[in-house]
Amino acid sequence: MTVQSKTAARPSSVTTGAIAGSRKIYTSPAGRPDIHVPFREIALDPTAREEPYRAYDTSGPYTDPAITIDLGAGLPPLRADWIARRGFEPLAPRAVKDVDNGGASGDRLVPACPAEHSVLGGKPGQPVTQFEFARAGIVTEEMIYVAHRENLGRQKALEGAAERRADGEDFGASIPEFITPEFVRDEIARGRAIIPANINHPELEPVIIGRNFLVKINANIGNSAVTSGAAEEVEKLVWATRWGADTVMDLSTGRNIHNIRGWILRNAPVPIGTVPIYQALEKVDGEPDKLDWEVFKDTLIEQAEQGVDYFTIHAGVRLGYIPLTAKRVTGIVSRGGSIMARWCLAHHRESFLYERFDEICDIMRKYDVSFSLGDGLRPGSQADANDAAQFGELETLGELTKIAWNKGCQVMIEGPGHVPMHKIKVNMDKQLRECGEAPFYTLGPLTTDVAPGYDHITSAIGAAMIGWFGTAMLCYVTPKEHLGLPNRDDVKTGVITYRIAAHAADLAKGHPSAKLRDDAISRARFEFRWQDQFNLSLDPDTARNFHDETLPKEAHKVAHFCSMCGPKFCSMKITQDLRQDAERLAGLEQKSKEFREGGKEIYLPAAE
Amino acid sequence: MTVQSKTAARPSSVTTGAIAGSRKIYTSPAGRPDIHVPFREIALDPTAREEPYRAYDTSGPYTDPAITIDLGAGLPPLRADWIARRGFEPLAPRAVKDVDNGGASGDRLVPACPAEHSVLGGKPGQPVTQFEFARAGIVTEEMIYVAHRENLGRQKALEGAAERRADGEDFGASIPEFITPEFVRDEIARGRAIIPANINHPELEPVIIGRNFLVKINANIGNSAVTSGAAEEVEKLVWATRWGADTVMDLSTGRNIHNIRGWILRNAPVPIGTVPIYQALEKVDGEPDKLDWEVFKDTLIEQAEQGVDYFTIHAGVRLGYIPLTAKRVTGIVSRGGSIMARWCLAHHRESFLYERFDEICDIMRKYDVSFSLGDGLRPGSQADANDAAQFGELETLGELTKIAWNKGCQVMIEGPGHVPMHKIKVNMDKQLRECGEAPFYTLGPLTTDVAPGYDHITSAIGAAMIGWFGTAMLCYVTPKEHLGLPNRDDVKTGVITYRIAAHAADLAKGHPSAKLRDDAISRARFEFRWQDQFNLSLDPDTARNFHDETLPKEAHKVAHFCSMCGPKFCSMKITQDLRQDAERLAGLEQKSKEFREGGKEIYLPAAE
Repeated sequence: MTVQSKTAARPSSVTTGAIAGSRKIYTSPAGRPDIHVPFREIALDPTAREEPYRAYDTSGPYTDPAITIDLGAGLPPLRADWIARRGFEPLAPRAVKDVDNGGASGDRLVPACPAEHSVLGGKPGQPVTQFEFARAGIVTEEMIYVAHRENLGRQKALEGAAERRADGEDFGASIPEFITPEFVRDEIARGRAIIPANINHPELEPVIIGRNFLVKINANIGNSAVTSGAAEEVEKLVWATRWGADTVMDLSTGRNIHNIRGWILRNAPVPIGTVPIYQALEKVDGEPDKLDWEVFKDTLIEQAEQGVDYFTIHAGVRLGYIPLTAKRVTGIVSRGGSIMARWCLAHHRESFLYERFDEICDIMRKYDVSFSLGDGLRPGSQADANDAAQFGELETLGELTKIAWNKGCQVMIEGPGHVPMHKIKVNMDKQLRECGEAPFYTLGPLTTDVAPGYDHITSAIGAAMIGWFGTAMLCYVTPKEHLGLPNRDDVKTGVITYRIAAHAADLAKGHPSAKLRDDAISRARFEFRWQDQFNLSLDPDTARNFHDETLPKEAHKVAHFCSMCGPKFCSMKITQDLRQDAERLAGLEQKSKEFREGGKEIYLPAAE
Repeated sequence: MTVQSKTAARPSSVTTGAIAGSRKIYTSPAGRPDIHVPFREIALDPTAREEPYRAYDTSGPYTDPAITIDLGAGLPPLRADWIARRGFEPLAPRAVKDVDNGGASGDRLVPACPAEHSVLGGKPGQPVTQFEFARAGIVTEEMIYVAHRENLGRQKALEGAAERRADGEDFGASIPEFITPEFVRDEIARGRAIIPANINHPELEPVIIGRNFLVKINANIGNSAVTSGAAEEVEKLVWATRWGADTVMDLSTGRNIHNIRGWILRNAPVPIGTVPIYQALEKVDGEPDKLDWEVFKDTLIEQAEQGVDYFTIHAGVRLGYIPLTAKRVTGIVSRGGSIMARWCLAHHRESFLYERFDEICDIMRKYDVSFSLGDGLRPGSQADANDAAQFGELETLGELTKIAWNKGCQVMIEGPGHVPMHKIKVNMDKQLRECGEAPFYTLGPLTTDVAPGYDHITSAIGAAMIGWFGTAMLCYVTPKEHLGLPNRDDVKTGVITYRIAAHAADLAKGHPSAKLRDDAISRARFEFRWQDQFNLSLDPDTARNFHDETLPKEAHKVAHFCSMCGPKFCSMKITQDLRQDAERLAGLEQKSKEFREGGKEIYLPAAE
């Protein structure tokens, strides 16, 4: 079932139903039967004699057949009770203005999402953000939720967790064998992790972003002035989270931006990020020079009240750095960065983002909107990687991080961009050092510029590596990068590609649970449990379709070969046949021991 | 124009014509006007005021409109004169037997390729292999050819080559700024590089494989008993080399294997590799236990006479290692490895590959067939990576390398497989150490097992990394890996993906010419030269199609934006506008200098 596109692009329906071979389950942390954390349980063939595999699940209620999806009503407000108990003040919401939707009217206006939504705000002195609670020693429900989620619902450390952790290389991270709510609190209090969770986004299923947790991925959606509408964007949100996006950024520009965001937020089970300067620019007719603090502040409040969970703020684009980009091959390639650079030069002064950073902090703290400090000067080509402009900005982001922490805000830091492999690690090391271990959130990086159309791949290489080195969240890149707006297929390809990168990073870091899935699918592969291999994969539909392209019959789903090698040349079949001669193997194991102890001289080759 | 599939699958036509935006050119090394090395010249927009970009070209005569392709006649024998001058003995060719084609007859027999082919062999004492010539201090035409090819036809070192080399991290490689024939000779003599070039494959355009040269990629083709025929395989060869495969392995099994290989070789501009044990197994009805030295030896001679350039020989699968695989999650996953393991256990002795290794060397030297020492015990899952079986075999391959060198043979070593990121480098380091720096030729490695359908990506991550660390050639993996036989689209996806990995590796190693292409395409991108961006990319057709999906009009090919961000939000456009105010920027550069020298205190933020 896919979304129907109509004139006003009011969303009607989206993709629902379980992912092939799995079902939605919920489990509760010890002592908290009121908290229900979703997982995706993949049943295995009875011959496997294995427990069902339990996977982390970002897909929200859309894959739960017990929940009726009504986009107009929005998702159930999972966090409403938790938030209610914290005593926030109900606010008179800011009135929606015509300019919020770019002056769209009549048939061209996307109607507002009718879902009920009251607006809350924290008072000064009252803890509002997860950071403030953590610093005060208070464990929130969100912290309990993410701890259980990271443990994949287990109540204690996995068997062999210590060995798997020791087997990895984590470059100084502190990944525990078992995540406790107290560990989560401590990581947040230290600024090493964030739970982006606006108090006005109760529909959110909390997720933690930090170096000592599973690596997360973000998918960008959003229309542009040139193409796509609201229905398409809500479906992209659902579609991206179905395949594994942990957070989604709505990068919409053009008309209807306010109302599209309303539909997205009320139906988003994941944190939603935005770049408020985009909408602010729309409000001043797309002329960067006309931006000012008032229009930006108004936009921050507008979006915070809607429930946006994190804002990209390009406050590190300082006037003095801009000339450092003059000799670059690709200048400034961040949209926000170029807008702010233009503003700075036009006015010849530091930007209002930098000058008013304290006030921005106060607004974001009030709703617990997390900072994603934007890298407006990130390199857009291999030639510009790790240059003075990029690293100068990163140093400024480090200074701003400390200011934001002092104001009680949660912070993560955005990173490059285009970087050749040998220059990736220095980015991670410098970010950890400059920014006090605040979570790093990188775009790729792309490890070469020569493959437009395949930049999900050029960047997955860099993303896997920087994730291994310590990046907490990877922003996906789709095959359309540099060429056009991604469609539904591109979004899926981007998400799966980045799930691969994130998982490869978790494996290399020695995350205690990461290897379980590799082992489960490898056993299925070796035992010719084709259905299990499909269902355990990141994309069961594609795996099944690829197999069936050459061997479509049901009988082939139990065959001990595939079309790649055929029956006679299947190494796994031959090896299985070998193993059936178990007695001989047992004897040989002894012989092999003798062989090795005897300096390999037992079986003298005839030729020698 | 694509291949027509008929009953007997006799190839008729294949894909020809220039790759979009480029034309075939030939240039000659200094002092050797008789040697013509092909390149692909990509013309740029006149506004760019740049020389055309010259790319390495693996596509052979198929992209040269001046050459008429006649598959029945085969390609022009480029090396015939060079070989003729070396005084090899014409041999009475081994007679083709019914069993060579699996007993296919009548309508089911693919006819032999009618192209003229006389068989040569070296005499004892006479230098035959490139290794023997190199050791004797003789620079062959093949060495001159590859030196010119690696330099992309330039007659001297590139401007800035030393800086680019110094900027990379090459982990102890010795990449020069300019490749001379003498350097090539020295690298081959040291065993650090090979030019796979059977004296019976005169159609070959020589290519060098070694750590101090551009990273190469191999594409596997081949039918299986379940699917595909000769016409399809020849088209796959042409298709794979069109997109950048440096060598091609024919892994065919089933009927018609001899005649299909004949069509492939006579029409192959790249080195062709095979795994002779596959055909040997066909000759004994697919029963590994029935294999013996005589049938294997006969197969080696059969294939060497046809002109195969390198053989995978699984001589490292020693009896004592087999029990070490008993507790693996995925046992033995190499087809050749499992066949030989089965043989060893059935006969309870070392394999004839190991026992007769000296004799194998003598046969391969006679025709200059290079060794690709197979990793029959490579890991097939993350769980089995870097285990005792794998590393034991690698040590044996190191011993065999020295034997083969003593016999005058060229050698490369095959490597894994499935390896998590943190265990990749130790593979490279151990291979260099054990095998005396003989070129490493790895399959991926796949950095996770959880994504069948996307294993070109799971493996591109590992391939880029191990290429950076020192692997000389990367064996591609297609999206169909583990699921089925790749089709034409899969082959292209696999090749482009591996060109990305190889290029990312070259960039990170600091190969002097690698960055030129990134810089050229980045300049085109920044200057909105869309056609140049498409044409400079690894796959111009896909880049162009992706762009045109959302902005199809010709006018959009000169637009200063794409559909991704639209005109108002294009950072590159904004930056370009900025740069036009050049005078102001110049002034600012000075200000920026003051700013940095003054400890960032010149522009005090108003908020402080």
